[in-house]
Amino acid sequence: MPGADGEIAAIETIRRALPTPPAGEVWIGDDAAVVAVPQDGRLLLAADAIVEGVHFDFELVDAADVGWKALVVNVSDIAAMGGQPLQALVTVVGASSSMIDGLARGLAEAGAAYGCAIVGGDLSAGPCLVVSVAITGSSAPRDPVLRANARPGDRLFVTGPLGRSAAGLRGLRSQGSGQGAVPDDLAAAYRRPVARLAEGRAASASGASAMIDVSDGLGIDLDRLATASGVGVVLDAVPVAQGATAEDALGGGEDYELVFAASDVDAVMGSFAAAGLRPPILIGACVENPTTRRLGDEQLAAAGWEHRLG
Amino acid sequence: MPGADGEIAAIETIRRALPTPPAGEVWIGDDAAVVAVPQDGRLLLAADAIVEGVHFDFELVDAADVGWKALVVNVSDIAAMGGQPLQALVTVVGASSSMIDGLARGLAEAGAAYGCAIVGGDLSAGPCLVVSVAITGSSAPRDPVLRANARPGDRLFVTGPLGRSAAGLRGLRSQGSGQGAVPDDLAAAYRRPVARLAEGRAASASGASAMIDVSDGLGIDLDRLATASGVGVVLDAVPVAQGATAEDALGGGEDYELVFAASDVDAVMGSFAAAGLRPPILIGACVENPTTRRLGDEQLAAAGWEHRLG
Repeated sequence: MPGADGEIAAIETIRRALPTPPAGEVWIGDDAAVVAVPQDGRLLLAADAIVEGVHFDFELVDAADVGWKALVVNVSDIAAMGGQPLQALVTVVGASSSMIDGLARGLAEAGAAYGCAIVGGDLSAGPCLVVSVAITGSSAPRDPVLRANARPGDRLFVTGPLGRSAAGLRGLRSQGSGQGAVPDDLAAAYRRPVARLAEGRAASASGASAMIDVSDGLGIDLDRLATASGVGVVLDAVPVAQGATAEDALGGGEDYELVFAASDVDAVMGSFAAAGLRPPILIGACVENPTTRRLGDEQLAAAGWEHRLG
Repeated sequence: MPGADGEIAAIETIRRALPTPPAGEVWIGDDAAVVAVPQDGRLLLAADAIVEGVHFDFELVDAADVGWKALVVNVSDIAAMGGQPLQALVTVVGASSSMIDGLARGLAEAGAAYGCAIVGGDLSAGPCLVVSVAITGSSAPRDPVLRANARPGDRLFVTGPLGRSAAGLRGLRSQGSGQGAVPDDLAAAYRRPVARLAEGRAASASGASAMIDVSDGLGIDLDRLATASGVGVVLDAVPVAQGATAEDALGGGEDYELVFAASDVDAVMGSFAAAGLRPPILIGACVENPTTRRLGDEQLAAAGWEHRLG
């Protein structure tokens, strides 16, 4: 661990990698940060930790990738509410001095990419690297899109083909054991996942009734949405990304595409087109029977990898 | 680690230990929580992690103590701004199933004690227990009390005698090695620290110019306040708690008393009396020379234990 002087130096490193707070706000350096909050009086709050040896492995990613991913998985939670991220707090446990620069760079890059200010946090010793991020966001001017309001008859959409992250991870592992190069886009899907922020806003604007991000795998995440809403789901097909397998697409997880339900297909397509986004893929529909989980003629398993390296 | 089913069971255990959200709010169970925010448009945000083997040791505390402490150290950060906590997010890494009940109980007890809602979080596998809490708060109707605005001539106060936590830790360790019982109040000071929330509000109401909580030790925390404010500090004496040594009081840390600067002694005493609080202890004053750090005739060392078990 850095120790008192090391901790101060590390905090300075992180502070230098970040922009300056606007007038009236206080970020890193006091007991708490002071920030402005949404005018609609509602705030979104989420937190996710990523853990060395469970969610990532330094054979396959570097510290900047870890910083990026730790923030992006949280931005994705805000995206899944149809929201916009505002601020993040980051606690880092078990970082060596040599990791701090990379972590700060990855966090700052993700913060800049998604318009999310890193306003505070904590550094501590520990036996392995744990990066825990808490994030705030706003869905204004619209209501947040919950998991629980899908209705029978709603159509189901996903914002992109699935399985790229799982295929990237498999490729990186094979490469590590000497078996050929992994395509850059698959490696990037695993190392630098993208949060579908604009897509979440577009889905919300088009009247999406329920939404979730595909973090643990389509099977398990869609089961969560259906269970929360008390509906069944029938999928026609699952879009498999180039280079991925059907199993990657269904159970691989960490794609961070959004799955959502909406009643008006034209409104959805219009909203995505108006935002200049790739059209979402229609994959199925919600049905009355709350126990139905079907993919074509097969049972859709609520399977997913809770922890990819666990 | 719990695994998918275990994680769901663990989240249910935590949810059951917590109160029900008010109408219009969504807590645990969606991608993000939805909460109401302060009407004054400003939010306080802080985060702190506590780590097994660094901040606590299961020989000396139980899981409920860890849950309590993880929340209270964050409430203390809000207290040090003169604020009131609102919501907390909790990420738990490396908890065995048998720890979850105790953690949830300790978190719920602290949440109830300080009026702080636990609205979400994350559970993950890991090699040791890490509990990371992010907290929101409000200082309304007043401005937050920063570290940076103490002025020469301001008097310095502390909300109570210091060193109880360090003395409690030493007692618990001796007891572990067979040397007599530790007084209950010292053991409790270490295991179940108290955040000085009402005191922080009273200090803020009396016009405190700067404030910090004594988490790492009076020497180091007062140095932080003085450095941020660009003032020197001269202490007459440091109040040592019964059963503690002068060294515990100066450098022991984890007392979570508040140290603050204010220009009007009568206003301070009046504000604490009006709130029915023990009067704060006048310990010294801020001086012009920004490098001065004095305790009586001695140099005041900016010493403290960043991590008590590190």
